[in-house]
Amino acid sequence: MDGLLYEQLAGEIAESITRGSLKPGARLPSVRTFSGERGVSVATVLAAYGQLERSGLVETRPRSGYYVRRRQCAPEAPRSPRRASGPSRVVSVGDAVAALQASMRDPSVVPLGSAYAAPELLPMQALNGLAASIAREVRDVGATYDAPPGLLTLRRQLARRSLDWGLSLGEDEFLITLGATEAVSLALGAVTKPGDTVAVETPTYFGILQILEHLGLRALEIPSLPGTGIDIDALADALRGGPVRAVVAVPTATNPLGAVMAPEARERLVRLLARHDVPLVEDDVYGDLVFDGTRPRPCKGWDREGRVLLCGATSKTLAPGLRVGWVVAGRYEAAVRRRKYALTLASPTLPSMVVAEYLASGAYDRHLRRFQRAVAAQVERVRDEVALCFPPGTRVSDPRGGFVLWVELPPGTRALEVAERALAQGIAIAPGPMFSARGRFPNALRLSCGMPWSPELERALHAVGEIAARARGG
Amino acid sequence: MDGLLYEQLAGEIAESITRGSLKPGARLPSVRTFSGERGVSVATVLAAYGQLERSGLVETRPRSGYYVRRRQCAPEAPRSPRRASGPSRVVSVGDAVAALQASMRDPSVVPLGSAYAAPELLPMQALNGLAASIAREVRDVGATYDAPPGLLTLRRQLARRSLDWGLSLGEDEFLITLGATEAVSLALGAVTKPGDTVAVETPTYFGILQILEHLGLRALEIPSLPGTGIDIDALADALRGGPVRAVVAVPTATNPLGAVMAPEARERLVRLLARHDVPLVEDDVYGDLVFDGTRPRPCKGWDREGRVLLCGATSKTLAPGLRVGWVVAGRYEAAVRRRKYALTLASPTLPSMVVAEYLASGAYDRHLRRFQRAVAAQVERVRDEVALCFPPGTRVSDPRGGFVLWVELPPGTRALEVAERALAQGIAIAPGPMFSARGRFPNALRLSCGMPWSPELERALHAVGEIAARARGG
Repeated sequence: MDGLLYEQLAGEIAESITRGSLKPGARLPSVRTFSGERGVSVATVLAAYGQLERSGLVETRPRSGYYVRRRQCAPEAPRSPRRASGPSRVVSVGDAVAALQASMRDPSVVPLGSAYAAPELLPMQALNGLAASIAREVRDVGATYDAPPGLLTLRRQLARRSLDWGLSLGEDEFLITLGATEAVSLALGAVTKPGDTVAVETPTYFGILQILEHLGLRALEIPSLPGTGIDIDALADALRGGPVRAVVAVPTATNPLGAVMAPEARERLVRLLARHDVPLVEDDVYGDLVFDGTRPRPCKGWDREGRVLLCGATSKTLAPGLRVGWVVAGRYEAAVRRRKYALTLASPTLPSMVVAEYLASGAYDRHLRRFQRAVAAQVERVRDEVALCFPPGTRVSDPRGGFVLWVELPPGTRALEVAERALAQGIAIAPGPMFSARGRFPNALRLSCGMPWSPELERALHAVGEIAARARGG
Repeated sequence: MDGLLYEQLAGEIAESITRGSLKPGARLPSVRTFSGERGVSVATVLAAYGQLERSGLVETRPRSGYYVRRRQCAPEAPRSPRRASGPSRVVSVGDAVAALQASMRDPSVVPLGSAYAAPELLPMQALNGLAASIAREVRDVGATYDAPPGLLTLRRQLARRSLDWGLSLGEDEFLITLGATEAVSLALGAVTKPGDTVAVETPTYFGILQILEHLGLRALEIPSLPGTGIDIDALADALRGGPVRAVVAVPTATNPLGAVMAPEARERLVRLLARHDVPLVEDDVYGDLVFDGTRPRPCKGWDREGRVLLCGATSKTLAPGLRVGWVVAGRYEAAVRRRKYALTLASPTLPSMVVAEYLASGAYDRHLRRFQRAVAAQVERVRDEVALCFPPGTRVSDPRGGFVLWVELPPGTRALEVAERALAQGIAIAPGPMFSARGRFPNALRLSCGMPWSPELERALHAVGEIAARARGG
């Protein structure tokens, strides 16, 4: 197989797509037909199509073939403001978050507000089987505290996996936490004092803003750009402008915009923060959930001085309710470990053992490939439906990973009102102002695409679309 | 059976013990003999002996009879200072805690430093059996977030148990946490701001001081009295003296002194704090571990205005590694729930299910009775050994519950040095200065009695006794 040849073929098709001669939704020629037409081997065509798929330009449909991915909506969310947004702000995310959280406990609510996968996408049978075996076979599970840094067998598996992340971490660098939430809250708590200013992306995951609020920290909002993540120029300005004690960023599948930072941008970010001696809390919880199956190297990979606190978890790809996460805290390791001891003492043993066994079984990579494809398809399906049934002028993000879509409703639409009315109809969505300490993004909302497509989901999306059409400001 | 008669008999015997005519370790007349001598029924004698046992003056030995409890050591730890100890203090518990925590991960270390039960005392077989059944039979365990306030079936069981505590709590009043540690840290965090002053007992459990340290709170030390718990007069003075934002106390089995506050004192404490509008964080983690089998009613029972935040857990009596605790936060419920969401998001599902099933099975009460007796016997055995092998002039607490003994070595003995040398010999103990934000109690140490008696434990105690004898200040 000629490497240059398949790349050349892929390039030609990509150009046709970009020019528009191959329309979104069009079926590519079958592999055999194309092989015959161009006089190249089937393997070469497969390699070309595979590359197009990885780059996100085409998609496979089971038992059907390759198709140009649909791009019916405006392809980008509107740009966030180019520069940091004025003075830092005491955080209070408020009642919208409380309402969304309360809805999480109601199984009758359609959960478009919270970013997690439907149970049927997760390897629950394997995980529960392992839990049963461990409980049956290992005497004294949970009979003692699994004191920080946490279960050695799990840390060993994570150290092994870190090679796939483009890192080479040691088992002693990991501290096991209660999901990524505790990882980020311990990391931030360890590197700041109450009253400090922390730079965050805007829009950003409301959970990060909540952590800031409960640690008494001030948020300085740095634009999160739709395609590329945190605006490093704006961050550089902010660092020159005054004391910023830490930065929190989600470099892979920014939440809510779904961008993946390029390697060069990651390197630049790490170097910038090193010059200013500012720690980076890197929320890598979506690291394993990039749709094209690539696994971006975390910013931690460019960190020579231990200033990056890498936070991850299995909540997005294995099981949220296991609550298994970790932080690799570099030079702040001792401070984070002491904080874990002080505030939650230890993580439960059995969930750590289950994840360790699952990772050791080798099943994770197979699961991930299926899972990434399934989530990508769901996101695309919801995206298409939004284009169809939301008010004209609606713009939708084009995520490269994660579970969520960022939807900008026509200017003047009041998203808080949309969320409230949707909840009254049994549909939870996350309104835009939750994603900013300053309550920006009044006409935006975030939709979670963790649920497989269903008539119920379709009805819910149409209902939100109708509510949005009526919720225009006067 | 004549109520007055058995009480009169018990009173006579108690007086003989107090006067010293019945020596510690002496055997009481057999029930039948005494019944014949005094011309009273066997039932009356049994009732009298039972009352003496409940009051802690005599003890039963299986297949042997009733004995006056041994009091070879000075019966009380030295009194703490009578008044609050000067200005509040920024907390830093420091390196002694870090050393003790590190030792928890080394199975070769004799664990006299941490207050938990040996696995063989815990119903691990039943708990692991339940975990296996649940994992096998319940599909999708852990497939979603068990969002705060946490698993309903567990909260329902806890609400039922609260009747045994002398309360009548509703299932909606409980929030499930990661052990009592997270309960106390969420409760304190919800009712204070960084920089606030919090009144704590002195000596107090170093974990509470760590929480204060990591929340940026100042500690005001109120004497914890050997027999009665927090010194309410001193606390009243302190409340008049300046702003105290919260009080943390361990009313049942104070840690380290092992006192149980009387009901009248609890009521007085709650009323005092109500007058000053100050919340009480009540750490009730040893509520089920009073040696005489009574279950003290928490201070929460006298709380009419929701100012008591009751914190509990199953870590001491069921399984530390399950990490199942709770807080009943009264008027602060919403604030605590939001804080839980922000900082750890949710507790893992499976451990909550295991505890709920175990409580529902009805096995807990049977386990508790055996467990309380076993721990009481272990504490008494270690106490006897300390009297035998520690330097003359050593004083030891006389706990009514919990796992620990507070040992005051002869004045001038440097406990930090004792702890360091003991650790070098593979024995972990907790030195006195860890139990005070001001580093008081330089010659005290806390011994955990969670391990059953063994030659290894005996050797360890003798080794600590020898080290202590050599560690006298110059």
